Amino acid sequence: MDERDKEKENISVIAGRNPVMEAIKQDELISRILVSKGQKEGSILKILSDAKKKGIPVKEVAVEKLDSICASHQGVVAYISPIEFKEVSDLLEIAKQRNEDPFIIVLDQIEDVMNLGAIARSAEAAGAHGIIIPLHRSAPVTPTTVKASAGALLNIKVARVTNITRALEELKEAGLWICGTHQDADSTYYNANLKGPLAIVIGSEGEGMSRLVSENCDFTVNIPLVGSMTSLNASCAAAIVIFEALRQRQNGKTVK
Amino acid sequence: MDERDKEKENISVIAGRNPVMEAIKQDELISRILVSKGQKEGSILKILSDAKKKGIPVKEVAVEKLDSICASHQGVVAYISPIEFKEVSDLLEIAKQRNEDPFIIVLDQIEDVMNLGAIARSAEAAGAHGIIIPLHRSAPVTPTTVKASAGALLNIKVARVTNITRALEELKEAGLWICGTHQDADSTYYNANLKGPLAIVIGSEGEGMSRLVSENCDFTVNIPLVGSMTSLNASCAAAIVIFEALRQRQNGKTVK
Repeated sequence: MDERDKEKENISVIAGRNPVMEAIKQDELISRILVSKGQKEGSILKILSDAKKKGIPVKEVAVEKLDSICASHQGVVAYISPIEFKEVSDLLEIAKQRNEDPFIIVLDQIEDVMNLGAIARSAEAAGAHGIIIPLHRSAPVTPTTVKASAGALLNIKVARVTNITRALEELKEAGLWICGTHQDADSTYYNANLKGPLAIVIGSEGEGMSRLVSENCDFTVNIPLVGSMTSLNASCAAAIVIFEALRQRQNGKTVK
Repeated sequence: MDERDKEKENISVIAGRNPVMEAIKQDELISRILVSKGQKEGSILKILSDAKKKGIPVKEVAVEKLDSICASHQGVVAYISPIEFKEVSDLLEIAKQRNEDPFIIVLDQIEDVMNLGAIARSAEAAGAHGIIIPLHRSAPVTPTTVKASAGALLNIKVARVTNITRALEELKEAGLWICGTHQDADSTYYNANLKGPLAIVIGSEGEGMSRLVSENCDFTVNIPLVGSMTSLNASCAAAIVIFEALRQRQNGKTVK
């Protein structure tokens, strides 16, 4: 990797087979590994298997994508994570320490880094105790994501889990109510009770919540729309529901 | 401009001195003209003066920026606007036609196309009668902006004005209340009365509303934050206030 690339990536990228293998071995915080499509021989196979063992997501991409990241990559590039991921139990512990009802935001397949950043910013600003993202099918937490969050991702705890449904079960066992967001919902976001121990699940930009995640919600809310649009930007929708929850939790009185 | 560039830009760019001059002359819908920094001779001067007459914003950029848009530009590039801009009075007319209290969103120097797009999407989805953006210091309405709005910009009317303060005066004369958004505000967004003829002013990403615009608001609202963040993403903040206005206008009852 030449100096120009390093500067461009804010020293957040490790490229080449040996450097990536070494980074995995030394438990560097890696947010995602990109491998060139179809590359399945020798040391790449070793990298794939090591990454799987350590729970690091791997994505196959066209070789042109790797070329655009850095000049010399040998078919593999790793993004260093700017944050250390936590466990779901760590998020609940923060609520306990603050002596507050747990308030957690769960992102089901948010794939855009700008949306992930903006939602993290809203969650942090609303006093949430953490964010849960899936290992796969999530925007990665990179320096770009941290920038998009205006630094919020350095303040709010993020748990990265293999299975969102299992994480929801863990939250339920800890006494949280799981509130899903869905156009075809039980009630509007302002009619639902968003006080007490609560997790709000935000679905992906295109598809919303997956079926399995949807089935694991205790109730769902929607945002009534009156124009011709059938949905809002994911980070805008998240902000509306998250801040209604904050209002209710602070007993803020509204205009009738 | 070669075929590759054309495809990349979705045929939304006109490059070169004569083509741009001709486009201005023929009243093509131009959202913005970019000229290479320091280019002030001959036909470029003519373009600058013609653009000024027709109210088309011109921005000076480094020549590298133009190179990245298209291979052969002769120091000038024009973005074709995917929409036709309206007058403030057209927006008020739509409210009249729908027999509704006017509800208008004013963007004071929103400079990011993703934010402009997302706010337009929220405004359309909340049934607003239009958006007002300034001629200068605003993200341009390009095909990228339309895409970021999920097409909302093709449905909601947009007025582009030389002077936001004068536009606010026009709205006041038409009986609208001007609601500004400001951290140091008169009340929270949910304590303020957002019913009746209303314009909501959203300030820029970095600086918020300008002083002059701020002084022309009838009242201001804020979004109480409890984390370490001192502000939200501009499109998220806009969504929260816009949808509280919609709730109030629909007489939606909230949880106490």
